[in-house]
Amino acid sequence: MTEKLYEGKAKILYTTDDPDILLTHFKDDATAFNAQKRGTIVEKGKMNCQITVALFQWLESKGIPTHLIKQSADDKILVKRVKIIPIEVVVRNIAAGSLCRQTGLEEGSKLPFPLVEFYFKNDELGDPLLTRDRLLILELATEEQLKQLQNLALSINQHLQEFFASCQITLVDFKLEFGLDKQGKILLADEISPDTCRLWDQTEKDPQKRVMDKDRFRRDLGKVETAYQQVQKRVLEQLGSAKKGL
Amino acid sequence: MTEKLYEGKAKILYTTDDPDILLTHFKDDATAFNAQKRGTIVEKGKMNCQITVALFQWLESKGIPTHLIKQSADDKILVKRVKIIPIEVVVRNIAAGSLCRQTGLEEGSKLPFPLVEFYFKNDELGDPLLTRDRLLILELATEEQLKQLQNLALSINQHLQEFFASCQITLVDFKLEFGLDKQGKILLADEISPDTCRLWDQTEKDPQKRVMDKDRFRRDLGKVETAYQQVQKRVLEQLGSAKKGL
Ligand SMILES: Nc1ncnc2c1ncn2[C@@H]1O[C@H](COP(=O)(O)OP(=O)(O)O)[C@@H](O)[C@H]1O
Ligand SMILES: Nc1ncnc2c1ncn2[C@@H]1O[C@H](COP(=O)(O)OP(=O)(O)O)[C@@H](O)[C@H]1O
Ligand SMILES: [Mg+2]
Ligand SMILES: [Mg+2]
Repeated sequence: MTEKLYEGKAKILYTTDDPDILLTHFKDDATAFNAQKRGTIVEKGKMNCQITVALFQWLESKGIPTHLIKQSADDKILVKRVKIIPIEVVVRNIAAGSLCRQTGLEEGSKLPFPLVEFYFKNDELGDPLLTRDRLLILELATEEQLKQLQNLALSINQHLQEFFASCQITLVDFKLEFGLDKQGKILLADEISPDTCRLWDQTEKDPQKRVMDKDRFRRDLGKVETAYQQVQKRVLEQLGSAKKGL
Repeated sequence: MTEKLYEGKAKILYTTDDPDILLTHFKDDATAFNAQKRGTIVEKGKMNCQITVALFQWLESKGIPTHLIKQSADDKILVKRVKIIPIEVVVRNIAAGSLCRQTGLEEGSKLPFPLVEFYFKNDELGDPLLTRDRLLILELATEEQLKQLQNLALSINQHLQEFFASCQITLVDFKLEFGLDKQGKILLADEISPDTCRLWDQTEKDPQKRVMDKDRFRRDLGKVETAYQQVQKRVLEQLGSAKKGL
């Protein structure tokens, strides 16, 4: 028996016959600025589903534990049900977005080290940036879990940077969500897609043309679908040849 | 020869004949919400000057190095000129203000440990909260200086909490500024006053009546001058008896 468990901004979760397994349906809905801006990106659900599956498979092959079980339709995956840690883990290689607005750093400047940041996953509060001490006071994670999240995020960044570089794409920044499985083990959950990454086309110099991610929607840059298609194409081709190479 | 060096929101700095010494004049002007709200608090300049002198003397007596040389008029002090570190160091014992707005913590809840936070002293950016890594990337301080600032802030908090408790005042939170003297030594600078602290009267239970600081102005609670006078009175009496006790 399948039942809608939760409908979010970009995905719907359904229960399955197995209480430990959920079905995730990727929607075409797009939102930005804490859902103040709303729209649709044609075929986004399918594209983000394919891209997420490809990237999660790549990460699994590198030893990162993820929630992915398998794809079950063009826009659906089966995942291990986890208790989501209410932290958005953001990794930044290049300054962009709120980091620039909040610090005055110039958009596009390379950071001296990959910056791992923790944001409170809380739409009501507007997903605020949290310091380590605020995280501990809010008891969103233990010190041991924070250390693990930090290490996982850095390791995922390494692998994704390498993968995207082979697609001639620069991984500017991205957001991750993690959850705890029944055994209390931390798994990478949710999605990794142009909705949750900043991706810049290395074959384009123009700072508007190179944008291949949700910033095209946020900033009304046009050609949103084309950008997502390009990411999908390059990622799938790359994963195809990587798999052959194994 | 004296010359106006800088006019800020609450104070004016003048040069003196000695290039290493500045004259600070405390104004009656009050601002809040990054100077969007403006007003005057009658005699604030004198009151904040007296309170700052009393608290800085107390801290000096406890071994904290400060910029204070001596008071030179009711609303003026002579200070060692420093290069201000552009960080507002905030120490919080009880949740209030932006911490509550940003985290959902309830106003008035006791924090499990004194929370030392670093904000970028930058009016244009709205004094944003900074994580440790953001501080390092912006090169606002070295790792060694951050460690020193953290330790100084905690030690100042200990001494001020004790002092205010003896005045029957709860030190909820406060903001500090530090600077480097010619030798590169970190000195406590700027001011400590009802403009820069949250102070709650322990003899009042009512959450509005107990407020003895700039929140009366920010939140239009009335009786602003009376609150500042009360703080001044209790602080000076306490310092008087503390000095006798030495
Ligand atoms: N394996 C999983 N188990 C349980 N919940 C998950 C899992 N993976 C992702 N989630 C959660 O499912 C929701 C996905 O829907 P989404 O549209 O992204 O929601 P939101 O609007 O809250 O971001 C998110 O709240 C996410 O945290
Ligand atoms: N000892 C010092 N040497 C040099 N500058 C100082 C010293 N103490 C405080 N300052 C600076 O002087 C200014 C005091 O004026 P204020 O009205 O508080 O300014 P602001 O509006 O910038 O907060 C602040 O910018 C503060 O950083
Ligand atoms: Mg989501
Ligand atoms: Mg000031």
